[in-house]
Amino acid sequence: MRSHDARHHLGKLLGDDEIERIVSSEADIGAILRFEAALATAQSIHAMIPVDAALAIGKACDEFDADATKLRDQTAIDGVVVPALVAQLKSCLSQDIQRFVHVGATSQDAIDTSLMLRLKQIALVYGRRLDDLLSQLAIVCGDHGHKPVMARTRMRDAKSITLKDRLVGWQQPLQRLRQQLGSLQDTGFLLQLGGPVGTFGTSDKNERNVASTLAELLHLCLPERPWHTARWPVVEIANWMSTLTGCLGKLGQDVLIMSQDSISDVRLEGAGSSSSMPHKQNPVKGEVLVALADYNATLVGGMHRALMAENERSGSMWTLEWLILPEMTVATGCSLRTAVELLKDADLSRPASAVSVPSGGREQPVSGGR
Amino acid sequence: MRSHDARHHLGKLLGDDEIERIVSSEADIGAILRFEAALATAQSIHAMIPVDAALAIGKACDEFDADATKLRDQTAIDGVVVPALVAQLKSCLSQDIQRFVHVGATSQDAIDTSLMLRLKQIALVYGRRLDDLLSQLAIVCGDHGHKPVMARTRMRDAKSITLKDRLVGWQQPLQRLRQQLGSLQDTGFLLQLGGPVGTFGTSDKNERNVASTLAELLHLCLPERPWHTARWPVVEIANWMSTLTGCLGKLGQDVLIMSQDSISDVRLEGAGSSSSMPHKQNPVKGEVLVALADYNATLVGGMHRALMAENERSGSMWTLEWLILPEMTVATGCSLRTAVELLKDADLSRPASAVSVPSGGREQPVSGGR
Amino acid sequence: MRSHDARHHLGKLLGDDEIERIVSSEADIGAILRFEAALATAQSIHAMIPVDAALAIGKACDEFDADATKLRDQTAIDGVVVPALVAQLKSCLSQDIQRFVHVGATSQDAIDTSLMLRLKQIALVYGRRLDDLLSQLAIVCGDHGHKPVMARTRMRDAKSITLKDRLVGWQQPLQRLRQQLGSLQDTGFLLQLGGPVGTFGTSDKNERNVASTLAELLHLCLPERPWHTARWPVVEIANWMSTLTGCLGKLGQDVLIMSQDSISDVRLEGAGSSSSMPHKQNPVKGEVLVALADYNATLVGGMHRALMAENERSGSMWTLEWLILPEMTVATGCSLRTAVELLKDADLSRPASAVSVPSGGREQPVSGGR
Amino acid sequence: MRSHDARHHLGKLLGDDEIERIVSSEADIGAILRFEAALATAQSIHAMIPVDAALAIGKACDEFDADATKLRDQTAIDGVVVPALVAQLKSCLSQDIQRFVHVGATSQDAIDTSLMLRLKQIALVYGRRLDDLLSQLAIVCGDHGHKPVMARTRMRDAKSITLKDRLVGWQQPLQRLRQQLGSLQDTGFLLQLGGPVGTFGTSDKNERNVASTLAELLHLCLPERPWHTARWPVVEIANWMSTLTGCLGKLGQDVLIMSQDSISDVRLEGAGSSSSMPHKQNPVKGEVLVALADYNATLVGGMHRALMAENERSGSMWTLEWLILPEMTVATGCSLRTAVELLKDADLSRPASAVSVPSGGREQPVSGGR
Repeated sequence: MRSHDARHHLGKLLGDDEIERIVSSEADIGAILRFEAALATAQSIHAMIPVDAALAIGKACDEFDADATKLRDQTAIDGVVVPALVAQLKSCLSQDIQRFVHVGATSQDAIDTSLMLRLKQIALVYGRRLDDLLSQLAIVCGDHGHKPVMARTRMRDAKSITLKDRLVGWQQPLQRLRQQLGSLQDTGFLLQLGGPVGTFGTSDKNERNVASTLAELLHLCLPERPWHTARWPVVEIANWMSTLTGCLGKLGQDVLIMSQDSISDVRLEGAGSSSSMPHKQNPVKGEVLVALADYNATLVGGMHRALMAENERSGSMWTLEWLILPEMTVATGCSLRTAVELLKDADLSRPASAVSVPSGGREQPVSGGR
Repeated sequence: MRSHDARHHLGKLLGDDEIERIVSSEADIGAILRFEAALATAQSIHAMIPVDAALAIGKACDEFDADATKLRDQTAIDGVVVPALVAQLKSCLSQDIQRFVHVGATSQDAIDTSLMLRLKQIALVYGRRLDDLLSQLAIVCGDHGHKPVMARTRMRDAKSITLKDRLVGWQQPLQRLRQQLGSLQDTGFLLQLGGPVGTFGTSDKNERNVASTLAELLHLCLPERPWHTARWPVVEIANWMSTLTGCLGKLGQDVLIMSQDSISDVRLEGAGSSSSMPHKQNPVKGEVLVALADYNATLVGGMHRALMAENERSGSMWTLEWLILPEMTVATGCSLRTAVELLKDADLSRPASAVSVPSGGREQPVSGGR
Repeated sequence: MRSHDARHHLGKLLGDDEIERIVSSEADIGAILRFEAALATAQSIHAMIPVDAALAIGKACDEFDADATKLRDQTAIDGVVVPALVAQLKSCLSQDIQRFVHVGATSQDAIDTSLMLRLKQIALVYGRRLDDLLSQLAIVCGDHGHKPVMARTRMRDAKSITLKDRLVGWQQPLQRLRQQLGSLQDTGFLLQLGGPVGTFGTSDKNERNVASTLAELLHLCLPERPWHTARWPVVEIANWMSTLTGCLGKLGQDVLIMSQDSISDVRLEGAGSSSSMPHKQNPVKGEVLVALADYNATLVGGMHRALMAENERSGSMWTLEWLILPEMTVATGCSLRTAVELLKDADLSRPASAVSVPSGGREQPVSGGR
Repeated sequence: MRSHDARHHLGKLLGDDEIERIVSSEADIGAILRFEAALATAQSIHAMIPVDAALAIGKACDEFDADATKLRDQTAIDGVVVPALVAQLKSCLSQDIQRFVHVGATSQDAIDTSLMLRLKQIALVYGRRLDDLLSQLAIVCGDHGHKPVMARTRMRDAKSITLKDRLVGWQQPLQRLRQQLGSLQDTGFLLQLGGPVGTFGTSDKNERNVASTLAELLHLCLPERPWHTARWPVVEIANWMSTLTGCLGKLGQDVLIMSQDSISDVRLEGAGSSSSMPHKQNPVKGEVLVALADYNATLVGGMHRALMAENERSGSMWTLEWLILPEMTVATGCSLRTAVELLKDADLSRPASAVSVPSGGREQPVSGGR
C-alpha cells in the first residue's frame, strides 16, 4: 500500500479512488477477459473459429473468477499475467473448446488492449473534471475578473492588471488540452492485435478483418499496424498528462505566491492546519498541485526512454511502462480533482495587492522601453 | 566549446553544424533584430509609430553590428540580452527615432519570437532529413524487404518474419512524426507579443491588429493570446523531438542487436575502428542513436518542469528552457543525420539469422496459445 | 492498488512484500507514535515535562488504535497526518496530560523521524539481501569462474576472458555499495527535531539535550542541526538506491545479452513462458532488473529537484519526496531480490560463446594498438 | 556555440569560462597525450618498453600538434578520438618507436583517464569557490546574523527567527559538501587502465605495477580494478555536483522569496534591468541558481541510466556520459560563481519582514501543539 492507495492515510490527499479502481489489478483482469471474449466473437464472425466456441468462451469470460494467488505466483515467473490467466480460463472450458481461446494472439495483445480500454475510461473521468474546472474558472472570472491585481514578472511587482488577465492565462492552455483530449478520444485509444511477432493482420486480409471487427466490438481504434514496439501511442498520452499537470502546477504555484501573508491576493478557505502553529493556514492544495506536476515531469522522461523497445517485443521497456504509466494516471486524476477543490476554496473577492501598487513609474504607459 | 560544437573533436559525431548555426548567438541576435524591425513596420502600418521611424529602425536593424563584449557583460547582469541590445540599437538612431524602438514590447517578446523563427527553420531541416530517411527506408525495403529474418521477442528468437516486417515497424512512427511536423509547421510556431505583463493585444483592438500584422510579416502564427507563462508551445515541440529521437533510438538499438557477431543480420560498412583491436568494427552510429535518444528522454522532463512558470513571467523557468531546448534541437538534428548515414552504411543483403532458425516448435502455426 | 502492491497480480514480479510493509501507512503511523512516546520520555528525563505525563503518553501510544477514516479525511485537509493523529492521541489522555504531548515538536519532526526509523529498517533488509547476492556471486565464481567466455566490447566479440573477469565486474561495485550501506547505517539515519521553524535545540542547551536523548532512544543519529529544508540526508539515500539498481540493471542487461539464443553463455532455468510460443523461455528476471534500474534512474532526479525546499519548510517539495522515495525503496528491494533469484536460476556451467572465438587477430597479444 | 559558450551572449550568465576551458576539446587532447606519455614512462620503468622509446614518446607528446580537421573526421567514424590521435602521434615517431605507443591500452583508458585528470582540476576550482562562498556566508552571518527575520513555513509567515538561523541552514549542507569534495580529491579521481577488455593488471603482476606507477605519475588514485563498465566513479561525482547545485538552488529560491517587493528581507544591488519597465530590478542571480539546480536535477538521472553499461564496454552508455557530464560541470561551476556574486550583491542590513510580525499567537511559546 503506497501513499496513493485509497486506504493509505495520504490516500485522499495524493491518491484518486476513481482512477485507482480503473488501474487496479481487478480492472486489468476484467479488461483482458473482455479482450479474449471479443476476440473469440470477432473470429467467429470471420469464420476463424466456430460460433459455438465463441459463445462458450464469452460465457466463461463473464463468469470467470480468477485464482488470484496462482495468478500472482505464475506471473512472477512469466513476467506477464496472460499465460496463467488463459490457462485458468481454459480450465473452465471443455477440451474441444479450449483450443479456440486466444487464437493467434499474444500476451501483449491482451495487455496493451486492456490498457487502452482503461485509458479510454480514464479519459472520460479527466474530461468531466476538466469541464468542471473550466466551469469553475469561468465562474470566478465572471464574479471577480474585473478586479485589479498586481502583475508580477520575475518575482517582482510589475504593474496592475485585472484578475481576469491572470485567470485567462490559466484557462487557455486547459481549453487547448480539453480539445486535445477530444482528439485522443476519437483516435488515440488503439486496439493491439499483432500476434506473437507483431505481424497478425499485416498481410492476411481475413486477419485484418478480425482486427477491424474486434476494434469495433471494443470501441477502440484500429491502428495502421500493431504497435508492439512502436510505443508512441502511450507516449502521446503520457505527454498529455504531464502537460496538464504542469499547467495545473503553474496554477498551484501562482496561488501559493498570491496567498502569501504579505500579498493576500487570495484567501484559501479550508486550508491545512499545523501541528505546532494552530493559527497558521497552510495552502495545501497549491502545494499538492506543484508536487504532482514535478512528479509527472520526473516520470515522463521514463516513458520517452521506453520508446527504445528493441526488436519485436521488449520485456524491459514494456515493464518500465507498467511501472510508470499507472502512477501518472493517478497523479493526473488527483491533480485535476485538487485543482477543482482549490478553486472552490479560493476566495478571490478582495485582491489586495493592487491596493499597494506603488506610485511612480509603474503605471505609466511604457514607451520605447529600453 | 562542448562536444556538440562543430570545432570539437566530437563535433561531427555528436554535433550538428547546420542546426548549431541556427541556435547560435549570432542567429539569435539576428532574429531579435528581425523582430524589432518587423514590429516597427507593423506599428507604422497601424499608425502607432510614424512610417519614417519604422523605415529608419528597419535600416538600423539591417546594418547593425552588435558590440558582442558589451552585450555579454550586460546580459550577465540583466539576465536577458534585449535591454543591452535595444540600447545599442538605439544608439545608432537619432534621438527622435529612439523612442519608437521596441514600443510596447518586452524582452520576452523578442526572445520568444526569435526562438520560434529559428525553430521554424530547424523544422525545415528536420523535415528534409526525415524525408531522406523515409526514402532510404523505402529503398532498403524494396531491395531486401522480402528476405527472411528472425523475429526476436524479449531478446529471444521467436519465428521467422520478413525484413520488411521489421522495417515497417521503423517506418510507420516516422511517417506519423513527419505528418505531425507538417502540422507544427502550419500552426505550431507562434509569435510572442504580450508586452511587459502579457496583456498587449488582449483588450486593445489596434494592438491586436499590430500583432496580427507582425505575425504575417514574420510568417509565424498568431496565438490566441500571449504565452509568456503558458509554455505548451515549446513543450509540444520538445515532445516531438524526444519522440523522434526515441524512435530512432529504437532503430539504433535494433541495428546494434542485429549486427552482433553471432547474429549478423546486418553488416555495417564504415563502422568504427578500435585503438586496441584493429580487427573490430564498432557499430558507432547505432550507439550514437541510442545515446541521443536517452539524452533527449533525460532532458524532456526538464521542459515539462518549466511549465510551472509562475505569475506573469518566470525568470527561472524561462532560463531553464534556454539551457535545455537548444541542446535538444542539436541532438535531434544529429540523430536524424546519423540515422540516414546508418541506413546507407547498413548492408542488409544477407540477413543470416533466419538461416539458423531452429527446427521444432517455432515455425508451427500457433494454435490456441496458452 | 498498484502493480507493486502485494495483492496485485504483478505484486510478486515488481513489488516487495517485506519493504512494502515498512513503507505502509500502518508502519508510518506506528513509527510516528514511537517518536511521540520517545519524545515525551526524553523530555521527562530532562525535566521538560513530568515523568507521569511521559509514562501516560507512552502507554497511550502503545495502546493507540487510530480511526483511519477520520485520519485520512483530515490529512486531505491538513496535508500532513500529524495534526489529526496527535488530536486523536490526545483524546485518549486526560486533559491535564494532553498538553504534554508533542511539546515543541512540529509535524515534520514526527514524519521525517518516522521515515528515518523505517529507512534504517529497510537498510537492514537491503544489507541482508546484498550479502546473499555477494555470496551467490562468490559461489558462481568459485564453480565456474575459470571457464572461458567471449568478452564483448561495443556489442562486438572482442577476445576471450574468463567468466570470473566478468563476474568480478558485477561484484566490485556491489561490495563498495555494501560498505557504503554500512556507513549509512552508522551515520546516515538522522533524527529530525527542529520544532515549528527548525530552531529547536540550535541555541537552547536543554533542548539540545532532549534531542540527544531522543536520538539515543530511537537509535538514530543526532544531526548537527535540524534538516527540515536541507534534504541531503534523503537525497544521499536515494542516490545509493539508484546506484545499486543501476549496477543490478547492468548485471541484468549482461544476462539478457549472454542468454540470447545465438550466444547461450548462460541458460536460465525457470524463465518465463509465452502465451503464444510455448517453446520460448523469456529472460524475465533480467528484464525486470533493467526496468527497475531505469525506473529509479527516472525517479532520482525528482529527489534532487526536491533539494530546493524553500524557506523553513516546503510543503510542495516535501510532498514530492513522499511521492518518490517510497517507490524507490520498493523498486530497490525488488531489484535485490530479483538479482538473487536470477543468479540462482542462471546455469553458467557451459559458457558456449568462447567456443566460437574466431581465429585471427583476436587472441594475439595486443602490441602497440593503434 | 551554445548558451554556455564563453562567446555566446549568455556566456557570462550561464557559462563558466574557467570550467569550460577544462572540458574543452583542446584540454581533452592535452590530457590524453599526458596519459600516453606517462604510460610509456611507467612501462619503461617496469621494463615493458625501452627507456629510449619512452623518452621519444614523451617528447613527441609534448611537441605534438594535432590536425584537428582530420581528428574530427575520423572521430565521426570511430566514435572515439583515440585511434586517430594515436595514429597521428605515431606518424611523428620513427617506425621502430611507433610500436611502443599506447601498448596494452585501449581508447577508453586514455579517455576516462583524461576525464579524471580534468575532473580533478575542476574539483580544485569548485573547492576554491566553495571556500569563497562559505567565507561570504560567515561574513554576512557575522554582520547581520543577529537581526530578526520572519520564518516562513509552507509559504506562510510562521514566527520570528534570526537571520543567522536561515543562513546556517544554507551553510551546513555546503560545509558537508566541502568535506565530501575533500574525500573525492583524496580517493575519487581514478586512473583507468584496463586494456581492450578490462583485464589489464587484474592477473599480471607487472601490469599491475605499471598501473600503480602510472597512477602516481598522474596523481590519480589506483582503482581496485578497471571500471570500464562499472561507472560509479563518475556517477558519484555527478551526484555531488547535482546535490551542490540543488543546495544553491534552495539558496536562490529563498532569496527570490525574500526579495519580493512585499517582503524585502533582502535588497539586491546590481539586479537586472527590464527592457520595458526600467524601474524594475530583477533578481537574476537567484533565478539562475534555480534554473541551474533544475538543469542538473534533470541531467543526473541520465548519468544513473548510464550505469547500465553492458558487457565489457558500452558505446552507447559511454557516449551518453559524454553528452551529460561536461554540461553538469559547467552548470555547477556557474552556480557556485553565481552564488558568490549573489551574496556580494545581497544587502541584508535591514531585514524588514520581522517588523511586520503580526501580533497574536505567533510569538507565544508553543506548548503541546496539536
